[in-house]
Amino acid sequence: MLEENYPIRTDLALETQERIGHGSGTIKGVDFSENKLENGITISTVHILTRNAEKTMGRPRGYYITIEAPDMIDNDEGYHREISVELAKIIRKLLPDIGKEPDENISALVVGLGNRAVTPDALGPRVIDNMFITRHIIKEYGKYAFGNEHVSKISGIVPGVMAQTGMECLEIVRGVVKETHPDFVITVDALAARNAKRLCRTIQLTDTGITPGSGIGNHRHALNRESVGVPVLSLGVPTVVDAATIVNDTMYNLIAAMNQSEALGTLTDSLESLDEAEKYELIRELLSPNLNAMFVTPKDIDESIKRLSFTISEGINIAFSQQE
Amino acid sequence: MLEENYPIRTDLALETQERIGHGSGTIKGVDFSENKLENGITISTVHILTRNAEKTMGRPRGYYITIEAPDMIDNDEGYHREISVELAKIIRKLLPDIGKEPDENISALVVGLGNRAVTPDALGPRVIDNMFITRHIIKEYGKYAFGNEHVSKISGIVPGVMAQTGMECLEIVRGVVKETHPDFVITVDALAARNAKRLCRTIQLTDTGITPGSGIGNHRHALNRESVGVPVLSLGVPTVVDAATIVNDTMYNLIAAMNQSEALGTLTDSLESLDEAEKYELIRELLSPNLNAMFVTPKDIDESIKRLSFTISEGINIAFSQQE
Amino acid sequence: MLEENYPIRTDLALETQERIGHGSGTIKGVDFSENKLENGITISTVHILTRNAEKTMGRPRGYYITIEAPDMIDNDEGYHREISVELAKIIRKLLPDIGKEPDENISALVVGLGNRAVTPDALGPRVIDNMFITRHIIKEYGKYAFGNEHVSKISGIVPGVMAQTGMECLEIVRGVVKETHPDFVITVDALAARNAKRLCRTIQLTDTGITPGSGIGNHRHALNRESVGVPVLSLGVPTVVDAATIVNDTMYNLIAAMNQSEALGTLTDSLESLDEAEKYELIRELLSPNLNAMFVTPKDIDESIKRLSFTISEGINIAFSQQE
Amino acid sequence: MLEENYPIRTDLALETQERIGHGSGTIKGVDFSENKLENGITISTVHILTRNAEKTMGRPRGYYITIEAPDMIDNDEGYHREISVELAKIIRKLLPDIGKEPDENISALVVGLGNRAVTPDALGPRVIDNMFITRHIIKEYGKYAFGNEHVSKISGIVPGVMAQTGMECLEIVRGVVKETHPDFVITVDALAARNAKRLCRTIQLTDTGITPGSGIGNHRHALNRESVGVPVLSLGVPTVVDAATIVNDTMYNLIAAMNQSEALGTLTDSLESLDEAEKYELIRELLSPNLNAMFVTPKDIDESIKRLSFTISEGINIAFSQQE
Repeated sequence: MLEENYPIRTDLALETQERIGHGSGTIKGVDFSENKLENGITISTVHILTRNAEKTMGRPRGYYITIEAPDMIDNDEGYHREISVELAKIIRKLLPDIGKEPDENISALVVGLGNRAVTPDALGPRVIDNMFITRHIIKEYGKYAFGNEHVSKISGIVPGVMAQTGMECLEIVRGVVKETHPDFVITVDALAARNAKRLCRTIQLTDTGITPGSGIGNHRHALNRESVGVPVLSLGVPTVVDAATIVNDTMYNLIAAMNQSEALGTLTDSLESLDEAEKYELIRELLSPNLNAMFVTPKDIDESIKRLSFTISEGINIAFSQQE
Repeated sequence: MLEENYPIRTDLALETQERIGHGSGTIKGVDFSENKLENGITISTVHILTRNAEKTMGRPRGYYITIEAPDMIDNDEGYHREISVELAKIIRKLLPDIGKEPDENISALVVGLGNRAVTPDALGPRVIDNMFITRHIIKEYGKYAFGNEHVSKISGIVPGVMAQTGMECLEIVRGVVKETHPDFVITVDALAARNAKRLCRTIQLTDTGITPGSGIGNHRHALNRESVGVPVLSLGVPTVVDAATIVNDTMYNLIAAMNQSEALGTLTDSLESLDEAEKYELIRELLSPNLNAMFVTPKDIDESIKRLSFTISEGINIAFSQQE
Repeated sequence: MLEENYPIRTDLALETQERIGHGSGTIKGVDFSENKLENGITISTVHILTRNAEKTMGRPRGYYITIEAPDMIDNDEGYHREISVELAKIIRKLLPDIGKEPDENISALVVGLGNRAVTPDALGPRVIDNMFITRHIIKEYGKYAFGNEHVSKISGIVPGVMAQTGMECLEIVRGVVKETHPDFVITVDALAARNAKRLCRTIQLTDTGITPGSGIGNHRHALNRESVGVPVLSLGVPTVVDAATIVNDTMYNLIAAMNQSEALGTLTDSLESLDEAEKYELIRELLSPNLNAMFVTPKDIDESIKRLSFTISEGINIAFSQQE
Repeated sequence: MLEENYPIRTDLALETQERIGHGSGTIKGVDFSENKLENGITISTVHILTRNAEKTMGRPRGYYITIEAPDMIDNDEGYHREISVELAKIIRKLLPDIGKEPDENISALVVGLGNRAVTPDALGPRVIDNMFITRHIIKEYGKYAFGNEHVSKISGIVPGVMAQTGMECLEIVRGVVKETHPDFVITVDALAARNAKRLCRTIQLTDTGITPGSGIGNHRHALNRESVGVPVLSLGVPTVVDAATIVNDTMYNLIAAMNQSEALGTLTDSLESLDEAEKYELIRELLSPNLNAMFVTPKDIDESIKRLSFTISEGINIAFSQQE
């Protein structure tokens, strides 16, 4: 309850779906499906269809596809190639949606959002470090340089964050797009999740671009087809939880715990008797003002970012340089 | 109340002093003094004198000196030289305590603890990056190489963290000390604070070494005179708050808020009527198990670590290469 | 002789001036002046005035100002502020030349060229790391945010190198300029010198932009007023010598040595008797093809880059945020 | 000729073998064999057997095994696993030589020599970044933690270079070995080659440890069984050529070219007529004093180091965690 009235931050459409859809999973104007693969990976699709559903879900219309792999965070021989392969399939499946066939001569600009100097925010820049960049070679020598007709023209950029550049990411990306004319943009960013258990175990893809307030750095301007000028596929992995979310969850847990505790019966009754305004006031008082500028992240985030940046760059590399 | 019974993590003796000493500030076996300088810096000294006070404070006997500068985090022309100068003075003042006069020919090994790959834990390694390392030059050419008799023999090491090395920091430091025979060791580490307002604004120095559980990486073995073989001065800056601390604080704030809210009178009464065991059980239930492996840190931690690593390395450089 | 017929690579106009101007220093269409300051810094100005002089010097018309400080490379307390101050003065002096008064409301985009992952090429990116970026703050809060009317609107970008981005630096910079409308661009880059003694001890400023083949990465397209759309001030420090230059120099030294050696009289005579074509053929044979993709750099280049990036960023910061 | 009398720097025993052994390849006291594998990899073994051969070869007695793969430098899907597998085989083959069976419970300390801040010298540190470190886990949970009895106890350290630590690498490694008791040490270092064509394409393994003057940083003290206290396997990849070597090669090429040029007959005769002292004097004059502190390295050294660090860490990982 409390949580529904307090603007909880999550960048995962799946988490919003879970919260609003509850048990039934049915939300008007939203198609939801889930596919559990044999290799333990779960792929969920949230499709927001109507303007009303946009409002309910707090997100623009479009597809939000989530790859969940509980062992994504675990060490194996390298970087979980099976996840990269699923990621590549989804990227290729979303292409017609933005008016491109995977077989065509495609050119894409991959944008690594985030701050390389802050570990959980370094995912985007580090994916670019590992990308197979081909645009300059194809421009100069043609595709035969790779002995593979299925190589697409890939460019990449790490725009940095506003504190480092004095510019909005949107300004930089739009400028580069206008000069270099990619067919579409793929953004990669670190996201904020609501549930700490999802950190570094989930990849979200959407054809709606990236919305203000996403990621750790709180981008103020959306990067999408309207603002950038070409379609924008956005790919993200939650690596932090907002500190305020942790506080809110505790409140919710407290009340839930009270409900289960006989000794606390009257206590819960009192709290329940508070009206919404009173509850909100209570939370506002409890929230330390410092928490707004803070995030929560796992202690081994360096290892996770390293592994995830390989999994994702490899997924994008497979999508654009190989046939399945 | 709740907080006193729950083992709240802080690496700052000053925070323990505040919590236990309350208004009066008087704790048996602990000398406490505070000195507000004209430049806005506050220097507090907690001196733990007795075995009983060790228990009360949860820390070994010795000096814990804290430099607080509210604007330490703010940008100025570089790195707040006035804080470096105060730091240097305190380091020099603590030397006789470990059996050394600042005028003697001193040799010190500076150890940068922490994980360079996790931003808020990178303080120690980055201080070593900026240290004025002299041991090899003095060994080969003598002090006249610097035209300054007051240059001490300084060496430095970044031992890394156990996940990277497979070794305890203590094993590495003890091995290096046995081979290179410094007069004493100075450790630099990122710490956990209880109060988010202290993050990146406080430097703690102690002549007791660094105790298990300090820092972000939870060192399992103390680095002190007994374990290392020479005296250990430890210098730390809080850069994270434990996620569990944030949760506990919220609980405490909730109860405080309830006490102030008339509407919540009976609710508070109910909660107060719980005995300690019930309260502890309540908290245990509320704590997400994931939170144990997480930390809370400011979003601009990269800038703070950069600036702090200059302030601290410069403080150590001044202490050992210049006369006041 | 040999050197004059072989296209020796230097990015320093001063070195071309020295080579062509010989003892006299007089080249038609080129004004040259030198100013030795009391603090040991030498400032030289090469002013290329005519189309013929452009050809002779192999560079576009304009000013090439060189700051030489023999001890620039030496460690002092930080980063040689006196050099930063001279650099700031020269930047401000060049502004009217590009149609701006230092007192006006200036907006500049600082571009850190080069490859952060190759130490001697990391100068540009690391200068951006240390820049005082203000554009986003002035845009949102105005200049009063800094309590200083003389703060200019500074933005910064690290475009990366073509192997990492698949794009020309020019494409990225032009795109960003079109979107963000700075009054002018300042590029910072690592250069190639002819003389190893100049490495890391010389700063060149020019109002002509940066020409193809400059820097370690061999930019293929010039960044200048015509290509970028706004004036381009270019700032560079030589950090490498081309391996082929070293080879050529040895040849030259050999012949010089032979001339001085009585025992080698006939030998030299024979070599001198070769015509140009034969000499060129000789050199071509001697040059290992691998050397073309190689550079020569000092072993302590990491320390030099660290110090130089502070000296230069501070120079730009002073130029745009302070009055002298 | 010239080269035989001038102390040309190479860290590769194979290059010394080639130079001294000429066509025949036979050197007294040195066994030499070469094995060209089907996958294009060549494995050469130089076995120095006698005290006299030590002198001739300028290296201590023992095995020097070289893996050459012309395409090691080329991009493929990742890091050339086939080279890692060969490397693992050779490491396992050398173990009995140091008194260990691959099947035994082995503990090894891997030491990443070199300077992380200078790209061509960063190989050692970056190999450690990618190592599968197990010692702390096996110590705490035993081998069953990995579900693999063939996992060895691996620890790793990056000691840094003397300018950063003020200590000899030997001091640090010996101290750590005494505290942690590994069965043997594996060092990984960037080397200097004589021939630019070998850069980043060759891996040398030796059971003799690492000798003074090896690597870019010119270690002054050998790390070997005598100095460290346990056997030392040394693994290195040439990433630089000494600038002085380039100069010397040019001289040699010049003379060779002269010999082939009829026009230059007398010239060559004159040069040949010089005695050794005169030749040496000539070279000394030609060598710029600055060149001693410089190295030559490829422009794309960042990509090579990245790929090589994976190839090598994976080779060591395979050697100690898997059965062939």
